[in-house]
Amino acid sequence: MVKLNADMKEAFPKMKVFPVATASKDGTPNVVPLAMVSLHDDETIWITDNFMNKSMTNIRTNPKVAIYIWGPEIKGCFQIKGVASIKNSGKEYEEMKAEINRKRPELPARSLVIVKITEVFECKPGPTAGSKLI
Amino acid sequence: MVKLNADMKEAFPKMKVFPVATASKDGTPNVVPLAMVSLHDDETIWITDNFMNKSMTNIRTNPKVAIYIWGPEIKGCFQIKGVASIKNSGKEYEEMKAEINRKRPELPARSLVIVKITEVFECKPGPTAGSKLI
Repeated sequence: MVKLNADMKEAFPKMKVFPVATASKDGTPNVVPLAMVSLHDDETIWITDNFMNKSMTNIRTNPKVAIYIWGPEIKGCFQIKGVASIKNSGKEYEEMKAEINRKRPELPARSLVIVKITEVFECKPGPTAGSKLI
Repeated sequence: MVKLNADMKEAFPKMKVFPVATASKDGTPNVVPLAMVSLHDDETIWITDNFMNKSMTNIRTNPKVAIYIWGPEIKGCFQIKGVASIKNSGKEYEEMKAEINRKRPELPARSLVIVKITEVFECKPGPTAGSKLI
C-alpha cells in the first residue's frame, strides 16, 4: 500500500464527483461518476455503494479500481489505482451507514467499498502524462 | 454498432473533458481525463492521442473503451462502451492531424483512436443506474 502526499490529500476533498473505473474479468472497462467517495486515511478510499451496478459486479470478480482527481479547483491531475474489498456488515460498514443515514437518509447505502491505494500516476497532459508518482 | 440518440448527440459536444477508461489485458482499469474527444458520426468517436500512455498500451492489446458523458451542462448521464482501433496513417489520420495542426500546432497528434460505439448505459444515480439504454 502507498500513502498519498500532502498535495494529493489537499486535492481529494475538493472533488465533488469522481470518475471511478473498474473492469470485468474479461477486460471490459466501466467508468461512472460517483459522489460518495472519500479519503478515509492517507492510503484508503471509502466509496458508498448506493446504486452501483456493473462496478460492483466487476469488483466482486476483479477488485482493481482506478480513480482520477482532476477538475477546475484541483492543482494538477493524478490517477489513483487500488484494490477494493466490499463490506456489508461490521464496524466500518456500520460507521459509513450511520453517516449516510444522518446526511442522506433516502439513500440505501447498500455496501461500503474500501479501496486500498496501490499506485498513483500523473495525468496532466504533456510528456510526463502517465508517469508513476508514487 | 449502435447509433447515439438525439439527446446523447446534443450532450456530447457540451463536454469539455471526457473520462476515458481502458483496461489492460490482465484487467487493470485505467481512467484519464481527455479533451480531444469528438463525435465523428452517430456511431463513432474520434480521440486524438497526444500524450496517452497506459491508455494506448491497453488499447493495443485490449481495444475495449468506456467513456461517460455527464457534467453541469449535461442533461442526464450516459456511459458509452466501444471498441477502438488506432490509426497512424491514412485519410482519417491525416484529416485529424491537419485539424490539430491548425488549432493547436504545438501538439503532437501522434495517433487517431477511432472508437466504434457498441453499447450505451444509464449512469444517473438511482434505481435505474447501469441499465442499458442502447
